Amino acid sequence: MDAPTNSRSSSVLILHNGMIVTMDPQSRVFRNGAIAIDRDRIKSIGQSSDILRQFSPVAHEIVDLHGQFLLPGFINTHVHTSQQLARGIADDVDLLTWLHDRIWPYESNMTEEDSYISTLLCGIELIHSGVTCFAEAGGQHVSGMVRAVELLGLRACLTQSIMDSGEGLPASWDLRTTDDCIQSQKELYEKHHNTAEGRIRIWLGIRQIMNSTDRLLTETRDTAKELKTGIHMHVAEIPYENQVVTNTRKVEHGTVTYLEKIELLQSNLLAAHSVWVDDAEIGFLSKAGVKVSHCPAAAMRMLGFAPIKEMLDAGICVSLGTDGAPSNNRMSIVDEMYLASLINKGREVYAKGTTDPTALPAETILKMATVNGAESVLWDNEIGSLETGKKADIVVVNPFSWPMIPVHDSISSLVYSMRSENIVSVMCNGRWIMKDRKILTVDEGEVITMAKQASSQLLKKAGIKIPVRMNVL
Amino acid sequence: MDAPTNSRSSSVLILHNGMIVTMDPQSRVFRNGAIAIDRDRIKSIGQSSDILRQFSPVAHEIVDLHGQFLLPGFINTHVHTSQQLARGIADDVDLLTWLHDRIWPYESNMTEEDSYISTLLCGIELIHSGVTCFAEAGGQHVSGMVRAVELLGLRACLTQSIMDSGEGLPASWDLRTTDDCIQSQKELYEKHHNTAEGRIRIWLGIRQIMNSTDRLLTETRDTAKELKTGIHMHVAEIPYENQVVTNTRKVEHGTVTYLEKIELLQSNLLAAHSVWVDDAEIGFLSKAGVKVSHCPAAAMRMLGFAPIKEMLDAGICVSLGTDGAPSNNRMSIVDEMYLASLINKGREVYAKGTTDPTALPAETILKMATVNGAESVLWDNEIGSLETGKKADIVVVNPFSWPMIPVHDSISSLVYSMRSENIVSVMCNGRWIMKDRKILTVDEGEVITMAKQASSQLLKKAGIKIPVRMNVL
Repeated sequence: MDAPTNSRSSSVLILHNGMIVTMDPQSRVFRNGAIAIDRDRIKSIGQSSDILRQFSPVAHEIVDLHGQFLLPGFINTHVHTSQQLARGIADDVDLLTWLHDRIWPYESNMTEEDSYISTLLCGIELIHSGVTCFAEAGGQHVSGMVRAVELLGLRACLTQSIMDSGEGLPASWDLRTTDDCIQSQKELYEKHHNTAEGRIRIWLGIRQIMNSTDRLLTETRDTAKELKTGIHMHVAEIPYENQVVTNTRKVEHGTVTYLEKIELLQSNLLAAHSVWVDDAEIGFLSKAGVKVSHCPAAAMRMLGFAPIKEMLDAGICVSLGTDGAPSNNRMSIVDEMYLASLINKGREVYAKGTTDPTALPAETILKMATVNGAESVLWDNEIGSLETGKKADIVVVNPFSWPMIPVHDSISSLVYSMRSENIVSVMCNGRWIMKDRKILTVDEGEVITMAKQASSQLLKKAGIKIPVRMNVL
Repeated sequence: MDAPTNSRSSSVLILHNGMIVTMDPQSRVFRNGAIAIDRDRIKSIGQSSDILRQFSPVAHEIVDLHGQFLLPGFINTHVHTSQQLARGIADDVDLLTWLHDRIWPYESNMTEEDSYISTLLCGIELIHSGVTCFAEAGGQHVSGMVRAVELLGLRACLTQSIMDSGEGLPASWDLRTTDDCIQSQKELYEKHHNTAEGRIRIWLGIRQIMNSTDRLLTETRDTAKELKTGIHMHVAEIPYENQVVTNTRKVEHGTVTYLEKIELLQSNLLAAHSVWVDDAEIGFLSKAGVKVSHCPAAAMRMLGFAPIKEMLDAGICVSLGTDGAPSNNRMSIVDEMYLASLINKGREVYAKGTTDPTALPAETILKMATVNGAESVLWDNEIGSLETGKKADIVVVNPFSWPMIPVHDSISSLVYSMRSENIVSVMCNGRWIMKDRKILTVDEGEVITMAKQASSQLLKKAGIKIPVRMNVL
């Protein structure tokens, strides 16, 4: 981007001469558009000529985008920021090894400082992938996440990992009582909700149904209503989960059916994965306005093919998540957009005998990563699209380099061709947090150094041994 | 990398202090390894201390890799270089629209110059993704590809798109006679085979069975034997193809069964896709030593799930391909490695009820992209692994930036975490063709300018209209 062309006492910033994909209700795309930003909010958006005419006289800075693309910041609706230091600790292993020998020892040995460093490292990857807001899937030390998010300049719904029952957990990991689970989350809410200029919100967490008593489920439901916040829960991840629920909780199908029965299915529930749901359950989710976070890479690797097309057809708000680093390795919504399209086109082969290259078209995928993401995190009144009055959460994409050239179909090129290397600048809450691929809020090199040290110490402390592959000499 | 530390009259280059993944038959990985390169070949490989002691005195240049990873160049065994200018012309459309309204008009209107520019643009993306050798899937103007490959410094098996029958082809596209098809390929072979310092080889092409007479199939088989070269053919792509073959050629299952019958299944056949093959056909492919190019992204989007695990279990040499830009959009073997792992882990859900996170582990995927690739293009005596006497085709990976940190499992991190932004330098045939992410053989900016112009002219000439998405103002 160009240097400032104007310098006055006002706070208005104009970005002009860009192709702006607004993702607004009219699906407007300005071929040569501009946006006027006043502090943390969008003051106006439209044709470059109009915006320049109206706001140049009062602008503090005017930036020429030279035809680059401008989009709302992407929203990652399911990410374990605390697991970033665990990237690669559980590749190519079965689910039990993954959980018992790698993830639980890792998480149960984390300190608050580890969580801080892990979230910083994860945040760097999120920003490089164009993410401005994320929903934490649930980790041990929310205060560590808060510190990191505050510094990174991102927007986030943070959640504690909550369990009050379950077998096979590490001995060192004392299970908390239901009351303690609820109480500690209320305290986190009191302390951190709506902090960091309003960028941080505190949600309630339920790790998964097999680690929850009935009382935890219903108290969480009621506490969320009381606090007017959301609930983030892993739902219907594997067939075994549904089987356990069917056997122990006496319902016909599985987790979703049970959650319906106890009235946990509500519009403030963000159900991650939701892979193993049947038609009736899709109906329940839709009717209750539950939001689903689809994590294509993790689903392919660990869980299975969620019926995303059916959910979208049923009117469910489906958004995109990366899951955590040990379930995926790449924490990139850019890659998840590409994957979501591919795997849901491919999945049709099992229903129809052939793939359906028209399934989940680019527009739908872009919606999932933006407006649906905003709705999923209950923040669509302020983010998810570029509209007057909304928060200035923005991504600048350079489509003029080899990964995207030639651009014959601008919208599809954003979903199918764009890579994280095309994401050049990111603004969150009206502040540039990355410019020309350089993160402005934290020192990347410093975080990487801290992360290397912290992660190797943590693995040693947790006694996690990763078998050596190949013949290392 | 550091500047040269030595300057003498010899031609020996040493790269030391790197983690070298050799992909040799002993699967050796040197934690602190070095490689001595003499002109276009590997003179020696081993521990840094040994190589430095032995070759420093005669080295012309000594480069410290500072712990970066060194791998054999990746091999892309199925790519339509001529389709690079068509990226995004056929996204989210059904197969018939894809072929009849977009790809055929595009290809039938290409000039030799278009092919040259398209291959240059594709080559840039291939190099950035660590590819040093590719197998062209078949395009119109081989001479244009030859010019580009010569300039890019890549290694390639080039193939003409060959059809002598078929319905629905553009009127402007005169079908050639069988004799003409064979004759023109013999001429290309005479003129270009083993040119560009031996980097270019000419293969025979068969577009697909539905565009081939029986005589074309058998003459191709015999000509390949006579010229001692390979055959590149699209095989068993869609159920419809098998159905047509079953009906018109009177065999029990499909293309592979028919190719077995006419003895086209031989060890010099590179069968792209091979999605719709049954157990008996997997047996035929295995017995004959046919090579399969698996193109995960294109398969997911257009074709279906190939039984890759079954093929590997049956001992078939399976390698990786990107297919062409309009079938995939990203021409990155780095992404295809990630995808190959994910989709083949996921596919198990349909056989077993759950995904198999242990299927196609990282070592297997790395083999597919290197040694299996070399075997697939019949060049494994010279490329595919880093061994003394082999050609110096090398990729340098920087694992110290945010996409890969932390690296707990070096081998899996190359497959699951690495992105093209981690590929820093690429050597082909002993010559650096990219250094520090800058392509040295062609001017990227110039190629992009040429490509934008050529592709928009070509689309206009071909009368291809791409519907506008969203509400563009």
